[in-house]
Amino acid sequence: MTSPLCPTWIAVDWGTTHLRAWAMAPDGILAEATSDEGMGRLAATEFEAALLRLIDPWLGTSAVQVIACGMVGSRQGWHEAPYRTVPCAPVDPAALVSVPTRDGRIRVAIAPGLKQPKPADVMRGEETQIAGALALTPNYDGILCLPGTHSKWAHISAGEVVSFQTFMTGELFALLSEQSVLRHGMQGDGWDDTAFDSGLSDALSRPERLAARLFSLRAEGLIAGLTGPQARARLSGLLIGIELAAAKPYWLGQPVALIGAQALSQLYARALAAQGVVAQILPGPQCTLAGLATLARQTETRT
Amino acid sequence: MTSPLCPTWIAVDWGTTHLRAWAMAPDGILAEATSDEGMGRLAATEFEAALLRLIDPWLGTSAVQVIACGMVGSRQGWHEAPYRTVPCAPVDPAALVSVPTRDGRIRVAIAPGLKQPKPADVMRGEETQIAGALALTPNYDGILCLPGTHSKWAHISAGEVVSFQTFMTGELFALLSEQSVLRHGMQGDGWDDTAFDSGLSDALSRPERLAARLFSLRAEGLIAGLTGPQARARLSGLLIGIELAAAKPYWLGQPVALIGAQALSQLYARALAAQGVVAQILPGPQCTLAGLATLARQTETRT
Repeated sequence: MTSPLCPTWIAVDWGTTHLRAWAMAPDGILAEATSDEGMGRLAATEFEAALLRLIDPWLGTSAVQVIACGMVGSRQGWHEAPYRTVPCAPVDPAALVSVPTRDGRIRVAIAPGLKQPKPADVMRGEETQIAGALALTPNYDGILCLPGTHSKWAHISAGEVVSFQTFMTGELFALLSEQSVLRHGMQGDGWDDTAFDSGLSDALSRPERLAARLFSLRAEGLIAGLTGPQARARLSGLLIGIELAAAKPYWLGQPVALIGAQALSQLYARALAAQGVVAQILPGPQCTLAGLATLARQTETRT
Repeated sequence: MTSPLCPTWIAVDWGTTHLRAWAMAPDGILAEATSDEGMGRLAATEFEAALLRLIDPWLGTSAVQVIACGMVGSRQGWHEAPYRTVPCAPVDPAALVSVPTRDGRIRVAIAPGLKQPKPADVMRGEETQIAGALALTPNYDGILCLPGTHSKWAHISAGEVVSFQTFMTGELFALLSEQSVLRHGMQGDGWDDTAFDSGLSDALSRPERLAARLFSLRAEGLIAGLTGPQARARLSGLLIGIELAAAKPYWLGQPVALIGAQALSQLYARALAAQGVVAQILPGPQCTLAGLATLARQTETRT
């Protein structure tokens, strides 16, 4: 039997489709574990067991602080952590919501998401990534873009989220490429940068033509030899293109940093570069962890 | 045992999700039958049996002509009927494709769809509805709009389809309202015209904001009390709105007639009326039948 790791605290990123935990020591990461027991698969009563399945090997006899962010704090999650309202700092240790547990070896707290009353918008999880990005690049003023299923653009000033806007870009890409009539023309591995660039430029110059351009992917596959990799890359360009067209008030003339998965961030960086914007890329998981660490440090001080 | 109807010919509308047949006499419809054995559910070898399950009670001993249109003629259908190229008349009896059958009581012919090389576009089934619309309103010059899963706008002049454009509007509505994160906010029966009109006007004035406006439906449901009927109607308005924004070269200053299901055509008529366009509504099934009848008359003359 191996002895437990006994981390100082445990960081948890708990989204709709995934659960990721880090065993943390004062000087870094002791261990990391992931599972696919995301919020979407769990009833409220099942979260504690799902978490313990992942982190049990790390636990000793004394209680350890677990700090979680993401959809775990939504109404359909483990325990609702009511939204904080922008403008505000991305995270606030005083707003952490404690979750009662049956197992005395963990003390669980969930970071709330942010809401913007008008135009109505919400985020859960990204606020922690934003806090991490600000911890990694202190005094950053400008725009943070978090590409993904529901891409977010946030205006950051003096350490606060001033405003933000969400785009359903990633979800549209998944629905269209996997579940619509377009799926028939998306076969084959590979990627075509030229097709991406042409979709991007079409969408930026005539965004209103989206629904017609989408069907063109199908028609060109049938009668003009458009390949799967070309179709997929052009679809991506079209969707990122209309996002950029609408997010222009965010990125125009502003410093922009991207937070997210490497491949997707690089596509956004390429798209922004075509508009003359050089964006810095910050890795998503590091930002999440740095944001949770900010909360852990401040929670420690308070208790 | 009842005696068979012995129709003069049989009209068949065979789409991806449905199969509809009419037993026709020289002076009208003798009987009508539908099933859900659409093209999407059948392998090439299964079409004949699916058709016979529907029309067998109508058949006597002598062979009867069956004229079909729709996805039944696609590469994944019963027998491919290669696209005709616009500009051309919507249908042409000389282009009907005969399909060999095992049962000698039917002689089956499929009407081909239309393709447009540039911008690449295709239709199957709508060309027959267009032919029917022209039979019902002779000498019509102007625009025909066929709202649906893949809405079509066609420019008609001197009995020919000059050009056309397809929008994935209906499919986007189905994916977003039934399979995306927005489905959570779409519960409840009912409809809200004001929400439809506001989505429409948002999309027409700022079409590039679509992906952001979509997520607003979710956010307003969570924090601003948007109801299911309001969300559904606004989604419909947004999607029809970006379609109208892109189809403006078609409808601006042109006579417009709508061909389709009553409720959907009325939404499009309402949307067009807000832009100052008074559109005539032609019922979809009647147009399909009138188009098939045009082919039947001319086929009879030829044989």
